[in-house]
Amino acid sequence: MRGPVPLAHLLLRQVVKAGDRVVDATCGNGKDTLLLAELVGETGQVWAFDIQSEALERTHQRLDAAGLADRVTLLACGHETLATLVPSLVCAVIFNLGWLPGGDRAIITEPATTLPALEGALQILDEGGLLLITCYPGHAGGDRETETVLTWATALDAQRFHVWRMGQLNVDQSAPFCLLVQKAISRHAA
Amino acid sequence: MRGPVPLAHLLLRQVVKAGDRVVDATCGNGKDTLLLAELVGETGQVWAFDIQSEALERTHQRLDAAGLADRVTLLACGHETLATLVPSLVCAVIFNLGWLPGGDRAIITEPATTLPALEGALQILDEGGLLLITCYPGHAGGDRETETVLTWATALDAQRFHVWRMGQLNVDQSAPFCLLVQKAISRHAA
Repeated sequence: MRGPVPLAHLLLRQVVKAGDRVVDATCGNGKDTLLLAELVGETGQVWAFDIQSEALERTHQRLDAAGLADRVTLLACGHETLATLVPSLVCAVIFNLGWLPGGDRAIITEPATTLPALEGALQILDEGGLLLITCYPGHAGGDRETETVLTWATALDAQRFHVWRMGQLNVDQSAPFCLLVQKAISRHAA
Repeated sequence: MRGPVPLAHLLLRQVVKAGDRVVDATCGNGKDTLLLAELVGETGQVWAFDIQSEALERTHQRLDAAGLADRVTLLACGHETLATLVPSLVCAVIFNLGWLPGGDRAIITEPATTLPALEGALQILDEGGLLLITCYPGHAGGDRETETVLTWATALDAQRFHVWRMGQLNVDQSAPFCLLVQKAISRHAA
């Protein structure tokens, strides 16, 4: 597991099952969306957001080539709208912050929309569900966004959310890392 | 996943398969040993170490009750001997540092033996295999041991080992956390 992508995929494989509903808040080049589409199977549903049409096109092509486009709703909207647009509880929401790989590096996720998006993700997350965020502190703006997201995550109520930071130790500390927020299972339900 | 035990078990379930060989370097009350014995199946093998006879007895009872004692070799030896006593490469080695739960809290793991044990674990780890260490900085001696282990892990060659720290953000920072070291798959083999 060199870097956060294989770690995120390992965690998603453990949590997302056939028939599940999940959200990719930042579909980018569509690699995560494709994995989610595979994991939820024929009876599941993926909602995938991006503000760049280039990202949505790449994602659609990738899904189409795999024959999985039917189970994915692509939304040309900012991720801050997800709690409004996703009509049900979901078992996972993933965010890959920063810019579109191979795209315009001037277009990056920004705290002003990322924080409302993360709050929205917690609202639609089912109990036991995972919010998985890959943070990129290594670019201008990314350091500030990472700081904001870490402050937000650290302040979450420990009775309601289990919050983990998963980062590599023996690499440059500006390397990307994962934040994982699991919604606790309530005592009433247990 | 409240605390490192469920996280460690999730990672082990993902990595350890039927027929595998694995090591529990600190069997303690035997809960991790039992999980490993289940995962390796009838054709696998677990080597489990502890210096306290109380720990070995508890572990044996737990394994015996589950009908899984036959696939576990219990060794009344310190974990610093593991590279000498385990006769093959393994796909996982786990360490749960600190004291025996419910036992004598004066008997704790110590850096002078923990570091050689960790070095030994890396020697017997197969490519792609996991070394999983749960650290407990919250007791006298545990803070010093944690510091030593973190320094050791941070200095590992990034070409040969992927080193992750996985800790909870929204809890007291003396809470236990996981260190995960994965031996890289060599380019020759790939």
